[in-house]
Amino acid sequence: MPTYKAPVEDFKFLFHELLEIEKREDLPGFADLTPDMTSAILEGGAKFCEEVLQPLNQVGDEHGCVLENGVVRTPPGFKEAFQQFCENGWNRLGAPESMGGANLPSVITFAFSEMSSSANQAFAMYPGLTNAAYGALAATGEPWMKEHVVSRMVSGEWTGTMCLTEPHCGTDLKLMRTNAVEQEDGTYLMNGTKIFISGGDHDMTDNIIHMVIAKIPGEDGKLANDLSTVNFFMVPKFLVDPETGEMTKRNGVSVGSIEKKMGIKGNATCVLNFDNAVAYKLGGSPKTAKKTEDGKEVKSKSAGMAGMFGMMNGARMGVGIQGIAVGEVSLQNGAAYTLERTAGRALTGAQNPDDAADPIIVYPDVRRLLLQSRAFVEGARALAMYVSMLFSVQNNAADEKEREEASDLSQLLTPIIKAYFTDKGFETANASMQVFGGHGYVRDHGMEQFVRDARINQVYEGANGVQALDLVARKMTMKGGRATMTFFGKIDAFIKENEGNAEMAPYITPLKVAYERLGKAAGWLMENAPKNYNNAGSASYEMLNLFGVVALGWMWAQMAKVSLAKLNAGEGNADFYKRKLLLAKVWLEREVPNTAAYLERIELGADDLMALEADAFVA
Amino acid sequence: MPTYKAPVEDFKFLFHELLEIEKREDLPGFADLTPDMTSAILEGGAKFCEEVLQPLNQVGDEHGCVLENGVVRTPPGFKEAFQQFCENGWNRLGAPESMGGANLPSVITFAFSEMSSSANQAFAMYPGLTNAAYGALAATGEPWMKEHVVSRMVSGEWTGTMCLTEPHCGTDLKLMRTNAVEQEDGTYLMNGTKIFISGGDHDMTDNIIHMVIAKIPGEDGKLANDLSTVNFFMVPKFLVDPETGEMTKRNGVSVGSIEKKMGIKGNATCVLNFDNAVAYKLGGSPKTAKKTEDGKEVKSKSAGMAGMFGMMNGARMGVGIQGIAVGEVSLQNGAAYTLERTAGRALTGAQNPDDAADPIIVYPDVRRLLLQSRAFVEGARALAMYVSMLFSVQNNAADEKEREEASDLSQLLTPIIKAYFTDKGFETANASMQVFGGHGYVRDHGMEQFVRDARINQVYEGANGVQALDLVARKMTMKGGRATMTFFGKIDAFIKENEGNAEMAPYITPLKVAYERLGKAAGWLMENAPKNYNNAGSASYEMLNLFGVVALGWMWAQMAKVSLAKLNAGEGNADFYKRKLLLAKVWLEREVPNTAAYLERIELGADDLMALEADAFVA
Repeated sequence: MPTYKAPVEDFKFLFHELLEIEKREDLPGFADLTPDMTSAILEGGAKFCEEVLQPLNQVGDEHGCVLENGVVRTPPGFKEAFQQFCENGWNRLGAPESMGGANLPSVITFAFSEMSSSANQAFAMYPGLTNAAYGALAATGEPWMKEHVVSRMVSGEWTGTMCLTEPHCGTDLKLMRTNAVEQEDGTYLMNGTKIFISGGDHDMTDNIIHMVIAKIPGEDGKLANDLSTVNFFMVPKFLVDPETGEMTKRNGVSVGSIEKKMGIKGNATCVLNFDNAVAYKLGGSPKTAKKTEDGKEVKSKSAGMAGMFGMMNGARMGVGIQGIAVGEVSLQNGAAYTLERTAGRALTGAQNPDDAADPIIVYPDVRRLLLQSRAFVEGARALAMYVSMLFSVQNNAADEKEREEASDLSQLLTPIIKAYFTDKGFETANASMQVFGGHGYVRDHGMEQFVRDARINQVYEGANGVQALDLVARKMTMKGGRATMTFFGKIDAFIKENEGNAEMAPYITPLKVAYERLGKAAGWLMENAPKNYNNAGSASYEMLNLFGVVALGWMWAQMAKVSLAKLNAGEGNADFYKRKLLLAKVWLEREVPNTAAYLERIELGADDLMALEADAFVA
Repeated sequence: MPTYKAPVEDFKFLFHELLEIEKREDLPGFADLTPDMTSAILEGGAKFCEEVLQPLNQVGDEHGCVLENGVVRTPPGFKEAFQQFCENGWNRLGAPESMGGANLPSVITFAFSEMSSSANQAFAMYPGLTNAAYGALAATGEPWMKEHVVSRMVSGEWTGTMCLTEPHCGTDLKLMRTNAVEQEDGTYLMNGTKIFISGGDHDMTDNIIHMVIAKIPGEDGKLANDLSTVNFFMVPKFLVDPETGEMTKRNGVSVGSIEKKMGIKGNATCVLNFDNAVAYKLGGSPKTAKKTEDGKEVKSKSAGMAGMFGMMNGARMGVGIQGIAVGEVSLQNGAAYTLERTAGRALTGAQNPDDAADPIIVYPDVRRLLLQSRAFVEGARALAMYVSMLFSVQNNAADEKEREEASDLSQLLTPIIKAYFTDKGFETANASMQVFGGHGYVRDHGMEQFVRDARINQVYEGANGVQALDLVARKMTMKGGRATMTFFGKIDAFIKENEGNAEMAPYITPLKVAYERLGKAAGWLMENAPKNYNNAGSASYEMLNLFGVVALGWMWAQMAKVSLAKLNAGEGNADFYKRKLLLAKVWLEREVPNTAAYLERIELGADDLMALEADAFVA
């Protein structure tokens, strides 16, 4: 049975040595984030994840969720764990104090997300989606919703979902058929079917608040094939009295079925049917327009959709972190096994001559799998924490220029975190399973569950190919390529700053090679994409990977710098820093070679990919 | 629900245009393999796989195997399908005519293996292992076993298994604890536990013949930690009367449990307990030595183990072909979906302006996934058929030199086929699932089953890391590197022969680049492995991949040559040959760039991988 030990020391290193968060006193709440404070939070969170959530991970996979008489039953222990989760406040670390939250910045909330997802991804999705849902509702809802609905979602009394996908459409929202028709009282009646709704129903709370996108029909009653008619709605499972917040009658939303899936079986993935369900349009509308708390009028249709996209963006970051999370936990178990399992002898002669065989950690190829995976996990965690920090900066820094820069960077890096991290997370889960040999394929050991669970991350919240297209077609080019230039400028400056330092050469030299290839690739794209947009499409995945290697290489070079400084000063745990230096080298010397191949394939362009007629693909 | 269409045209192209098998009249049975003959066999096999086996693939996954009262029940329909399989003779395509087989060469039997594994891998394993078992028994057993046991395995009345792994040991046979003690009558009594026994029990036939390796204790009754005491045995589920071949009493072998696994759920993976089971030592022994049918005495202990290793080698080839098989079927379904599913618009403007959206095949990145996967599948199939042909040459060619060369090449290429093909097969199953988006994750669509089934291929018959080590430490160096030199010589000659041909330049130029890198890597290994054997270990996986790209590149360049000749002559289906030329280009231009990275990582050597203490991996 797998175990989990949360990487508390690594988070502390990132917070206080790499990012030095406590020095950002200008950002709300950061002055309090002393090492003592973050230790207490991280260790408390670690204990809960290790002792309560992790033991339910295989239980969830084994039992799954069951639909009986229209009601979803979650796996044994999930309901109790969820209550405990909320009682301890883990569900509202980031919520404002006015709502009963701890108002902690996203470096803390995302660190906890990683730990809870490592321990039990299927479970962590229930509160994770609830957070995303109440965040969107707080941003777009009317005062009574904030008062009565958001507050109950923050407390954990109710949960929330995101309802986007329909059977025939996911990414392409303009195809959607779920519709909402305005009623005399300003509410809407919604009809249609949504699928793949994580936590769409369950037995852990009395009410569930669905955040739904749907089309408003035109005056002719027809649905336009047009994004502008898509709006964002709140649809509670049980209706809520706007005056008192009491649950009233059952709304017209029901579970059609739950999906049998490859993994994350502890989370109920529902087909939801909306049959004249009462829906509340968010972001205001001419009929229901009201002043928000701070007195502004919210009228435009797009305010609601902006809230929806905000929810999606947060979710993409969360999914990327799930990639790290499953990487971390699977790797811990894979590594532990290689110290126990014996087979054959080290290639250079017996290491344990008194035993019948050596542990398989003696084999270079086993170490290669573990070290490359470890270099991904810790490099990715560093980038995730850096971007979490950017979220605080973009929202709260005093300087507009700094806010703008942080926002540019976080937008650019979000698709990379979502797609690159989940691809590598899946790779890591597979590598960790692989060292188990045949035992990895057997359910008891829990390793194959990590692979099955990890696989969803590449798919949901926008399949990874969609993320790659978002990167090249939107993020790299937005505002005249400003975000790209900012990112390049940061790396350029770091390289220049450290190029003269001989100790840093093993990190800076390969980083520079990769960075120059990235620059060349971006240049090729600028020249060739406008001639033929398919050249952007054919380059997109290679570009995503190239960015990923460079971004993590930059993080590793920074971590190497910090580690060298500590070692030179004789401070802290030398073994910790030496290990970081080795992992930095492993990342840079083993991933940077791939960047030449990425660039070479980018420069091929799209012609060969587009040469075949569609029918020839199924010949 | 997935569908399957066997790639009959591709096999015919490989047989009659690439390999020109019918021209090898010197090899037994080859003169009969005219296009008409192979078409008839392939089409008959295709029909059976498509219509009988494929519809049971999801059934097998859904129901799995059940152990009730000590007996394994296979999924609904498996028993009937197995009977039909044997009645139609698909289980004995390659068996000698004297045993009721069709005596067809391995190009045919492996082609059928691919088709049956595509249709239903879990099912195909039952007859596949039976073939491996009766092959080994025919090679090492006594005359009565051939007469009564092998004949029943060939007819399909009984099945067979391979019993190697124990709970604490797989690859390292010398650790094994199952033991067999000789009795007065020359039989042995076996005690111990074997795990991961595919088809270890089932309800499809009355008897099962287990091919088991176990240790013979020394005179002191103790088991030596030594491979020389490991022997090869036949252990029937029900004992067999040597005179009549009738089943007599139940032997002391029973099913302890069946494993819950990630995939291939239609195949029963058993824990088998041997409790004083009667076992027959194979390969002869002083007490039981008899003349074999052709009059030779079989005495040495190693004759039995040679039979076991022969069985393992055939199985490794079979597993590599399972990698192609799952790649083919998953890709067919992935490709078909991209022509149906619509989302958004082509990057260059709407392709189907009258519809609400374009099919996703318009996207270059979707095409990239499909084309790279397709180039793997068809390149791998060509190499598999080439090596299948080598098996016939090594056994039957008149010229000793030719036999030797074929044997060298097939030995060298076997670990590459096993490991590289199964890694890429898993990648292909994942790519095919990925184009389904969220629908790929749902069981109904069957795509995630391909991923789960494909995953076993990287693990069983020697985990892929073990194959990589076999390649660098054994196959590349055997007989002073003779096999490596032969392989290099073939590619070198092909390049020289075609270098002057401008039409061939798009294929020869990148092939040469990759080939030169392979040569450089081999040179590095020759120089650095003797200094430190860990340098062989650290290079092993990169070397395997480098060989894989070159070997498939060589196949693609040959297929391109044939296709160009046909196009220039105006013969055959021009679309077929143009498609082959495109795929050849896709393989060479998109995989060869990776070879630079493989070489670069090989040249890093083992030092960084070995730098950390084992304990630091679990810190």
